[in-house]
Amino acid sequence: MDGVSAASPAAGVGPFAAATAVAPDGPDRWSGEVAPGWDIVGNANGGYLLAMAGRAMVAATGRPGPVSVTAHYLAPARPGPVDVATTVVKRGRRFSTASATMAAGDRPVLAAIGTFGELASVGGGHHRVESAPPSLPGPDRCVPLEPGDVFPPPFMARVELRLHPDDAHFAEGRPSGEPRVRGWFRLRHGEPLDAVGLLLAADAFPPTAFNADLPVAWTPTVELTVHVRAAPAPGWLRCAFTTRFVTGGFLEEDGELWDGTGALVAQSRQLALVPRS
Amino acid sequence: MDGVSAASPAAGVGPFAAATAVAPDGPDRWSGEVAPGWDIVGNANGGYLLAMAGRAMVAATGRPGPVSVTAHYLAPARPGPVDVATTVVKRGRRFSTASATMAAGDRPVLAAIGTFGELASVGGGHHRVESAPPSLPGPDRCVPLEPGDVFPPPFMARVELRLHPDDAHFAEGRPSGEPRVRGWFRLRHGEPLDAVGLLLAADAFPPTAFNADLPVAWTPTVELTVHVRAAPAPGWLRCAFTTRFVTGGFLEEDGELWDGTGALVAQSRQLALVPRS
Repeated sequence: MDGVSAASPAAGVGPFAAATAVAPDGPDRWSGEVAPGWDIVGNANGGYLLAMAGRAMVAATGRPGPVSVTAHYLAPARPGPVDVATTVVKRGRRFSTASATMAAGDRPVLAAIGTFGELASVGGGHHRVESAPPSLPGPDRCVPLEPGDVFPPPFMARVELRLHPDDAHFAEGRPSGEPRVRGWFRLRHGEPLDAVGLLLAADAFPPTAFNADLPVAWTPTVELTVHVRAAPAPGWLRCAFTTRFVTGGFLEEDGELWDGTGALVAQSRQLALVPRS
Repeated sequence: MDGVSAASPAAGVGPFAAATAVAPDGPDRWSGEVAPGWDIVGNANGGYLLAMAGRAMVAATGRPGPVSVTAHYLAPARPGPVDVATTVVKRGRRFSTASATMAAGDRPVLAAIGTFGELASVGGGHHRVESAPPSLPGPDRCVPLEPGDVFPPPFMARVELRLHPDDAHFAEGRPSGEPRVRGWFRLRHGEPLDAVGLLLAADAFPPTAFNADLPVAWTPTVELTVHVRAAPAPGWLRCAFTTRFVTGGFLEEDGELWDGTGALVAQSRQLALVPRS
C-alpha cells in the first residue's frame, strides 16, 4: 500500500516516481536527475527537490515513511544531474534520522534533515482534532490551473491543482485580499501519491502572497518543514495554505493536507523571503 | 545590541550564556557542557540543547542571527560534556547555512540544521500581521512556576515562567481541557535574552498535552523548528503554545513568542510523540 520506490525507476512507474528516483552511486551517495517540466521559470520546484532528497534518505535509512523532513534551500536547481550525499545520524528501533545535501556539480542546492519510520506503526492511541479539512467546492467546481507559457507555469502539467474559486483570480488582477490559497491536489495521469509525494504537494500551490496585497513576483523559500501524519489514501488531496505574519522581510506559509478519507496527512510550514520589490 | 556570545563564556556572562557556551575544539568541532539544572527529570531540555547547538552554528558560520533552525532529537542528554560537529553547507551574501550534530561521547543526541544571518538586515519592506499577541494578565497576575522536586521541575530555577491562570492548574488535576499553554517567559537573574535564547524559550513551557484530556506523562520531542523573526527586546516574552492535531501517535505544538514591543520575535513548531500510556 505504501509504494515508496527508493531506488531506480522500474518500468511502468509514473512520471513523478521516475522524476524523483535516485540510484546508488557509492557509499552514502545517490544520483538523480532534475527532470524538465518540474520547474517554475526554469528553477525546479522546492517540493519536488525535497521529494528527491527524501527518496535518497528513504534509501539510506531503509525506512519508507517520512515522519518529519526539513529542507533549507541554497540555490536554484535547473534540469540536469544532481548528487545527493546522505548521512544516517541514527538508526533507531522505530525511527532513523538522516541528513542530505543535494548538489548540482559542486554547487549545493539543498540541505535537508529528516526522520523516517513506518508511518502505520505509530497509529492508534489518542486522537483529537481541533480543526477540519478546508471547506472546498468539489474539484469540478473549483478552478483548474492548466499549464501556460508563464502563468500558470508549465509545472502545472506535472501536478493537477484546482483552486477554490475565491482564491483563484490573483492572476487576473483580482487577489482575494487574504494571504490564503485553498484547493485540490493530485498527480497527473492517475499516478498514485505516496508519502514522499506529500513533500511535493506541500510546496506545489501558488504563493499565498499572490492573494495578499503584496507586490511581489515570488517568495523564495528559505526553509520548508513537512510533518507527515499518515500515508495518503488514493485520490485528491484537500489543501489549504495560509500566512499570518509578514514581518522583517519574511513570511511563513502554513499548510494542511487532508486526504479523501478526511484524515490530516501532512502539516507543513515554510519560511519564505519577501522581496522588497 | 545583539549580544550573541559565540565562543567561551567571558567573566560576568549570565547563567544561560555560560551554560550554552561552546569552545572551538579543532576544525568544525566545538565542545560544550550540558550544565546541571537545565534538565527535566535528568534529561536536558530540548530548547536548551538546541541553543547550544545554535551557538556552535553561529560560531561556525560567523553569523549571529538564527533565521530558521531545526533539530531532530535522537537521545536524551544528561549533564556532562558534549561535542558539536558542524558543517557549513553554504556561505552566502546574506545568509549562511550549517548543519550540526551534538554527541555525548559516541552517542548522538541531536542533529540540527540552520540558516543564520543578520536579523536586523532583513527588516523593512512589507508588513502584515493577521494575529495579535496572546491576551495575558500581567506577569504579577499570572501563576509563577517555581521549581520543586518533581513538578515544577528544577529547570524552573533557570527560566522564569508565569502561566495564564486558565492554563496553570493541570498539576492539581484541573487541566483546562484545551491543548494550550500561555504565559510569560524570561531568564532568571535579569539575564538578557539574545536571539539564540529564543530557541530555549520555544521549548521551555509545559506540554500542551497537560491541559488536554491526554493521559500522558510527557510528550517527547521528535523535531523542533524555530523561525526567528527579530531579536527580542529586553524583558518578558509573551508566549502561546497550542496543539490542533493529535493523530497517528503524534501531536504538533505551535508556538508564538512576542516581545514587549508587541513584535512577533519567533514562531515555533514541534512534532512530539504521544505515548500510548
